[in-house]
Amino acid sequence: MIVKMLDYFFTPKAIAVIGASNDPLKLGYEVFKNLRSYKDGKVYPVNVKDEVVQGIKAYKNIREIPDEVELAVIVVPKRFVKQTVIDCGEKGVKGIILITAGFGEVGEEGKKEERGLVEIAHNYGMRIVGPNCVGIMNTHNSMNATFVMNAKKGDIAFISQSGALGAGILYKTIKEGIGFSKFVSIGNMADLDFADLMEALADDEQSKAIALYIEGLKDGRRFMRVAKEVSRKKPVIVLKAGKSESGARAASSHTGSLAGSWRIYEAAFKQSGVLVAETIDDMLSMARAFTQPLPRGKRVAIMTNAGGPGVLTADAIDRYGLKLANLEEKTIEELRSFLPPMAAVKNPVDMIASARGEDYYRTAKLLLSDPNVDMLIAICVVPTFAGMTQTEHAEGVIKAMKEVNNGKPVLGLFMAGYVSEPAKEVLEKNGIPSYERPEDVASAAYALAEFARNTGVIKEE
Amino acid sequence: MIVKMLDYFFTPKAIAVIGASNDPLKLGYEVFKNLRSYKDGKVYPVNVKDEVVQGIKAYKNIREIPDEVELAVIVVPKRFVKQTVIDCGEKGVKGIILITAGFGEVGEEGKKEERGLVEIAHNYGMRIVGPNCVGIMNTHNSMNATFVMNAKKGDIAFISQSGALGAGILYKTIKEGIGFSKFVSIGNMADLDFADLMEALADDEQSKAIALYIEGLKDGRRFMRVAKEVSRKKPVIVLKAGKSESGARAASSHTGSLAGSWRIYEAAFKQSGVLVAETIDDMLSMARAFTQPLPRGKRVAIMTNAGGPGVLTADAIDRYGLKLANLEEKTIEELRSFLPPMAAVKNPVDMIASARGEDYYRTAKLLLSDPNVDMLIAICVVPTFAGMTQTEHAEGVIKAMKEVNNGKPVLGLFMAGYVSEPAKEVLEKNGIPSYERPEDVASAAYALAEFARNTGVIKEE
Repeated sequence: MIVKMLDYFFTPKAIAVIGASNDPLKLGYEVFKNLRSYKDGKVYPVNVKDEVVQGIKAYKNIREIPDEVELAVIVVPKRFVKQTVIDCGEKGVKGIILITAGFGEVGEEGKKEERGLVEIAHNYGMRIVGPNCVGIMNTHNSMNATFVMNAKKGDIAFISQSGALGAGILYKTIKEGIGFSKFVSIGNMADLDFADLMEALADDEQSKAIALYIEGLKDGRRFMRVAKEVSRKKPVIVLKAGKSESGARAASSHTGSLAGSWRIYEAAFKQSGVLVAETIDDMLSMARAFTQPLPRGKRVAIMTNAGGPGVLTADAIDRYGLKLANLEEKTIEELRSFLPPMAAVKNPVDMIASARGEDYYRTAKLLLSDPNVDMLIAICVVPTFAGMTQTEHAEGVIKAMKEVNNGKPVLGLFMAGYVSEPAKEVLEKNGIPSYERPEDVASAAYALAEFARNTGVIKEE
Repeated sequence: MIVKMLDYFFTPKAIAVIGASNDPLKLGYEVFKNLRSYKDGKVYPVNVKDEVVQGIKAYKNIREIPDEVELAVIVVPKRFVKQTVIDCGEKGVKGIILITAGFGEVGEEGKKEERGLVEIAHNYGMRIVGPNCVGIMNTHNSMNATFVMNAKKGDIAFISQSGALGAGILYKTIKEGIGFSKFVSIGNMADLDFADLMEALADDEQSKAIALYIEGLKDGRRFMRVAKEVSRKKPVIVLKAGKSESGARAASSHTGSLAGSWRIYEAAFKQSGVLVAETIDDMLSMARAFTQPLPRGKRVAIMTNAGGPGVLTADAIDRYGLKLANLEEKTIEELRSFLPPMAAVKNPVDMIASARGEDYYRTAKLLLSDPNVDMLIAICVVPTFAGMTQTEHAEGVIKAMKEVNNGKPVLGLFMAGYVSEPAKEVLEKNGIPSYERPEDVASAAYALAEFARNTGVIKEE
């Protein structure tokens, strides 16, 4: 039920921005500007003074809008918030994104006010995301109900307890070409919290994984219960801040929520089938993996055009308890039949620097067909032959994958900065997530295997 | 003595490229093209067929060049290498960069040939880097004696046993804006090895740190002895591939050198004062730190405009055994006097999203002046106020640092992708290394503290 309920936060029929502004220095300016490209419905500015906002007729009060409004984004000064919430209720709004800050995060008085707002909202049948948040994005219908830049469209739903860090991560991923389906800055979680949003996004077809940045939980038991249910259908990846004692102290002073002991969290996460990330990149790497099918075992084949990255990747998967596959004799023989004598035909298969797209194709095909291989990591460093790009290598892997077509996951590790970008694009377009660092591709392989284990695709040894 | 000896690899009077080519598909084309911007001397093409290479008069044999040639880059097919080395000897060349592959890495026969070449070279008083390498770069005089793109100019000397990975790292750093002083692709180490180059670079004023990517050592004892000596003057950071058993097996088949047990290596590295990196980014983050002075203790102050990154950074420094500084009462009081009530005035100091450049300046000044603080990490996430960039925040920190001027190291963590780039440039121009990920700034802080401990700047507790 709640799934349907929260749809108005992601695909509302119409949106009102209360506090929409003509002043570029105000958040209400950015929010309204960002929302103007919304595709699934109208967006109305509400401003007590200006008759026109950014060229659009504005309303003094949301109640004057001659249309059904499902979602209200509130970005007015704190002293006006209460009345605004009441107005939203009278108007028949379903969801409120409350960006305005100065509530629960400032102390007991603010917490009380926050609770009061939630009570009003509930009386009208409304739900609140926030307060003290950056807002919500749905990249699939261009709904950017935040005051930050558009994220790249993709498959990851990302819920962040820190708005600023969340935004920083979006900005960083724009540079790195990583995409999101939804972004929710969850703020003080006065009403809707991680559990509610996880539940809502569990059945979202545009989100292949749910990534959470958590500083502290308000209702740990409920979180774990919901996480357990959701992670039966969809991978949930958690980055938890405050693992160290000093970090935990800082987190608790920051969010006002209890950070709690990391050991307790960790045990509970694992029991709930939640995948635990160590760093931001870890979290993103894991979440990106799920455009690939799940492996039926933990045996990884690595192919590379340079020994070093193969070795670093072997080291990195080892840290996660994944195994290097023992290739069948037949595979080894066939690899030897066309790879140069200097190539290493054991796993990791080092095709050496002369490898072209055709070698990637033939090698990938053999490795994917080997019954001892559960997943494949295709590595490509700078081709040392002048005039060669990495695109042909990427295309070779894709061709092999399409031909073999036996549901084994393939991950890319294309390690050459700018040079890799065209190849990475080709891979991503074909659903193969491509990484730049051995530890990231290893995190991805681990996430696939771990989710496969949690969901019974890999049987426990 | 060796320092002076190896100068001809980095600042040769004249260079000959033997195998310089007009064919863009040949490595000899790229090498000669790259070397044409060399600033400290002439570069001569040697080509048996063409009279002119890339518009420059070519010589059939290096011996015909009417000039003293200190460095020869050999990129001819393998069967011509031996005679070419003899010609170099007759010409009075001092150093040879032997790019050509097909020697020690292919087996016993190749190893024998390699040894033969070294013998010839030594008889003529020449030294060899390679074979099977990408070449050498010195960014400070624009000497790019490789077939890969120019690295960005900077302060890190980087020696890589894997040419392809080394090149991949340079390409990646171009994108990330990380600079190098020297790059040496050390290849098969038939003659010169890590120890020789470390020794040579120990006194290089353009290199503030030496980063090594190692797959296996040929003479472990000598390496450790030299590393111990060098790391008394200059930080040596090692990334070792083949830590896991399967990685070690793969490394040994790749380089033909014994990978050895990681535990033995690790103990030896630590005893020698070498800083051990876990990943490529770790290695780079550590190496970049040394544009800053060394701390006199392990107590870190963190300032931030968002709680989350402060918490993640507190977690990350904790993993390295660094401590959050306990600020003096006076510092806390003064922070409270100007920061907003919602700010956290304990370490990490969260100045909250409203913080401007002036807040960064005043906070940094107070933290640097606090006797309980040994180093400062300044964090900045996306400023949430429209129209604000991160540049003023960076400038605030720099101003404070200059005014306080008490030799405490400052590191930046500016986490907003493209948005951070102008601020990062300002920081780097002022010698403050700026990172994008909490774990990287923590690695940097650790490296400074660890090198300070190794060199007695921090007394062992």
